[in-house]
Amino acid sequence: MPRVVTLTTDFRLASPYVAAVKGVLLTACPAVSIVDLSHDIPPQDVTALGLFLRDSIPFFPARTIHIAVVDPEVGTHRAALLVEWRDQFLLTPDNGGWTLIGSEPDAVWTLNRPEYWRSPVSPTFHARDVFAPVAGSLANGTPPDALGARTDAWRRLHVPEPVECDGVWSGQVVSVDSFGNLITNLPPVDGRVRVGGTDVGRPVGTYGDRPPGSLIALISSSGWLEIAVVNGSAADRLGARRGTTVTVELANPPCFRLAAP
Amino acid sequence: MPRVVTLTTDFRLASPYVAAVKGVLLTACPAVSIVDLSHDIPPQDVTALGLFLRDSIPFFPARTIHIAVVDPEVGTHRAALLVEWRDQFLLTPDNGGWTLIGSEPDAVWTLNRPEYWRSPVSPTFHARDVFAPVAGSLANGTPPDALGARTDAWRRLHVPEPVECDGVWSGQVVSVDSFGNLITNLPPVDGRVRVGGTDVGRPVGTYGDRPPGSLIALISSSGWLEIAVVNGSAADRLGARRGTTVTVELANPPCFRLAAP
Amino acid sequence: MPRVVTLTTDFRLASPYVAAVKGVLLTACPAVSIVDLSHDIPPQDVTALGLFLRDSIPFFPARTIHIAVVDPEVGTHRAALLVEWRDQFLLTPDNGGWTLIGSEPDAVWTLNRPEYWRSPVSPTFHARDVFAPVAGSLANGTPPDALGARTDAWRRLHVPEPVECDGVWSGQVVSVDSFGNLITNLPPVDGRVRVGGTDVGRPVGTYGDRPPGSLIALISSSGWLEIAVVNGSAADRLGARRGTTVTVELANPPCFRLAAP
Repeated sequence: MPRVVTLTTDFRLASPYVAAVKGVLLTACPAVSIVDLSHDIPPQDVTALGLFLRDSIPFFPARTIHIAVVDPEVGTHRAALLVEWRDQFLLTPDNGGWTLIGSEPDAVWTLNRPEYWRSPVSPTFHARDVFAPVAGSLANGTPPDALGARTDAWRRLHVPEPVECDGVWSGQVVSVDSFGNLITNLPPVDGRVRVGGTDVGRPVGTYGDRPPGSLIALISSSGWLEIAVVNGSAADRLGARRGTTVTVELANPPCFRLAAP
Repeated sequence: MPRVVTLTTDFRLASPYVAAVKGVLLTACPAVSIVDLSHDIPPQDVTALGLFLRDSIPFFPARTIHIAVVDPEVGTHRAALLVEWRDQFLLTPDNGGWTLIGSEPDAVWTLNRPEYWRSPVSPTFHARDVFAPVAGSLANGTPPDALGARTDAWRRLHVPEPVECDGVWSGQVVSVDSFGNLITNLPPVDGRVRVGGTDVGRPVGTYGDRPPGSLIALISSSGWLEIAVVNGSAADRLGARRGTTVTVELANPPCFRLAAP
Repeated sequence: MPRVVTLTTDFRLASPYVAAVKGVLLTACPAVSIVDLSHDIPPQDVTALGLFLRDSIPFFPARTIHIAVVDPEVGTHRAALLVEWRDQFLLTPDNGGWTLIGSEPDAVWTLNRPEYWRSPVSPTFHARDVFAPVAGSLANGTPPDALGARTDAWRRLHVPEPVECDGVWSGQVVSVDSFGNLITNLPPVDGRVRVGGTDVGRPVGTYGDRPPGSLIALISSSGWLEIAVVNGSAADRLGARRGTTVTVELANPPCFRLAAP
């Protein structure tokens, strides 16, 4: 069975950078099966990379190797990591993006063995010169302990947590998908949803439950509260983007709430 | 030989949806070879998906499995289909798009065996939760009759037919390709071509037969009348789009035409 | 080991052209592993294709087959080539783009054996009807001499050479990458860099050496002088594009320079 190596970057396919990474990978291990996840992460947006990984990596099988590189600090002192998570492996800069994946890793190594890298290493292209050759070695069966040193320290990133107060959840848009749907950090609660001053009503089951053009709330395929326009773009309709506030006034607020003074 | 599974969607690679589908597919059948066809079908445009399939699926070998999902009705009562066509398989929502492929299928099944799906099924993401796992089972050798029930009823879609009258063919643009070339529903007839008020002249052999910037008609690589600007965009030049009328006044109209009164 | 076939075109994934090429390839040789390099080369831009190949092909292993098609002259008398270069193979129209790869090929054949092509050949789509089936035959083990005739004549393309005079290098932007970084034709010399009237200062090591928003010069991952804005776009900031002049006043000009009169 060929070893699957996935690629997620902000490089775009218009530039030769992704192609060079693929060449190095196939040179290091001709038997890998390369799977593009995305090269359209917004440039330098480490949070967007993390949310992308959160919503895609859990669906992959054990032994998959993921190269995930959005790397504004390339060539500085930031470390390069190999992360083991649910029997999968991630190769990624130590900038916290990957920690949005939502649960703790099983093990983390700092890559510190240049004999497994290309030489010389370009200070601006570690995906090609560090991560790709290390992925090839891993696919060839080199154990992680030969590639780096175990570590317990790495940078973390957090998405804002929603707050609940007096039966009103308050959260925000954390990403906008390719259809213009707004994905929030709110759990799948039932109640009246508002984005800015606009009343979106209570969540429906799916897009087709309302006529084209309707503004709706629903539960996203990853389990978060989502705002959408049927066959349209909620981001365009509402002028919303990452950080826009979204509230839900619970339909059945808990009854043990204190009386107002 | 690994089983090839192709993907055609309107998801865009910027969103994690395609990545999730690939993960589920590789989990279900690690030996598949995943081939991206397009994730840039215009959002919710079932006709565009159908024309894309018409111009690409016929070139694939027997046993290929195609996941083709543009699905504005996801999660409603629309059926999910498995289609056998020239020894290939399509997994696609029952919205008619695939019927533009141009000839009748050999067999069609309605997917009705949830034990082959992910559980629970998200009402907004059947590509991940229904089509991908079923494709994996098919690739693993599960027979279609185990995955669904044979059916003779499905929705159909039609592109407009051109009409011919008194030696003049009248048709329309059915798609605009990535170069801005206008692909019509007109057969490869010879005559004076007009788009709106603009005379394009008679078809030439290929783009390079005229200097850059020339507006030309020619026969597309799929056999349809096409309007192009050499090294430019006919869509931009003419302000044309899907639905724009195109006519051809035949160079040698049939001689048995009735005399005008 | 499956034979790797890469694809580089200006077709865009929104059109069915790439999909058709993949289908023909898999039909000709089901065991190939298809790797997309880019389908976003600017339309008809043969120079851009050449620079893309220069920065990616050298990283691929021996025996890789590359289909590289930007082909404004498709269907005219331009030849179709099979190029052997460092034990890799390129299939590409004879328009000079591939010669930017930087060193001489080991052998070149003109494809002249239609029995290895699809029939009929569309005058507008040789990627599908000539290059893909020939790539399949090559992957199946057909020797190059069976597919074409050896030739010593092909078209060449050149990027402008920089000039050095009195300690000042003068060159230009030859490509703009997906981040808006300006890649020049200047070697990695040290000195004061200017783009148009703007002083960029001396090259730094990497993007992260300066704060976000800084305009910097550095050495690109392919070894050329590059102008960038940290976490931004130098192309946007400077209004620069291919052809924009870039100069470097050497920090330590050679001392044997003649005295001014």
